[in-house]
Amino acid sequence: MADRIDIRISGAGGQGVILSGIILAEASAIYDETNAVQTQAYGPEARGGASKSEVIISQKRVNYPKVIDLDVLVALNQESYDKYIGDLENGGTLIVDDSIKVSKEKKVKVYRLSLIAKAKEELGTKKVANILALGALAAVTDLISLTALEQVIPNRVPAGTEEINLKALKLGGKIVN
Amino acid sequence: MADRIDIRISGAGGQGVILSGIILAEASAIYDETNAVQTQAYGPEARGGASKSEVIISQKRVNYPKVIDLDVLVALNQESYDKYIGDLENGGTLIVDDSIKVSKEKKVKVYRLSLIAKAKEELGTKKVANILALGALAAVTDLISLTALEQVIPNRVPAGTEEINLKALKLGGKIVN
Repeated sequence: MADRIDIRISGAGGQGVILSGIILAEASAIYDETNAVQTQAYGPEARGGASKSEVIISQKRVNYPKVIDLDVLVALNQESYDKYIGDLENGGTLIVDDSIKVSKEKKVKVYRLSLIAKAKEELGTKKVANILALGALAAVTDLISLTALEQVIPNRVPAGTEEINLKALKLGGKIVN
Repeated sequence: MADRIDIRISGAGGQGVILSGIILAEASAIYDETNAVQTQAYGPEARGGASKSEVIISQKRVNYPKVIDLDVLVALNQESYDKYIGDLENGGTLIVDDSIKVSKEKKVKVYRLSLIAKAKEELGTKKVANILALGALAAVTDLISLTALEQVIPNRVPAGTEEINLKALKLGGKIVN
């Protein structure tokens, strides 16, 4: 893994991108012993339909906790994709819901996955699409393991939703293949 | 309000300091139209008994999202107080649970409040002490209003706990007087 990996998880308000960011950062720090920092910015830009959570994973101390070079973009709605795709570096990784129209201009690895529809179909709620996205992230990159995410999820999701979120994680991990 | 206010909410893991930070930042940004940034750092320093969430509230764009000069420290356990009190600026505001032993070296405004015990006594669970702390923060500073916090809390706390958290907020607001 590179010294520093910058990840942005984005979507509409209510799609749980903050929670995903917290889980990812915590799993990385605790189970992979990295330094992870997770940030949300609110303000004029956050009052629209694109919400974002940023996670920096590093082997070293993170001096600047906001995204510098975006390595991984997760987008759960069209607006957040449109807004943030321009920041993704060449060679970066893009994980998007398959409801999103993706342009082919960039030289990035694209995973266009049925996150929202599968969540709804197989687990009865599209609310857990954010956790499917984490499962997919673990499957397609070496940034985080499913095992680490599995440890953190029960402590971070609302009480009573542990099981469905763990199912969502597994489903996300499988969806890629 | 000053141009930029740096706030740190700290406590043990499980005391809900991340959630408090998120609620505070979101309430400030949406209802007071500030630019608010909320950050957690995980890593070696976070693997002990002191967890922290930082919120920067600013009228301008926040260029550096970590604490520069700490204006407000909320501490819910002794370890986080001991660890972070050194960062609080002279003239700053300290809100701590009354289970914490506070030294008198610093020239800061000290609010030593029965957050955990009152939560347990009046609401049956000490889990909501983090929200009492937000209520107290609204009561003793002009950084955020109870009304703004009231709007955000139902969207951010686990489903089914909206009411108890709103009660906790009110209780925190009253506890100061």
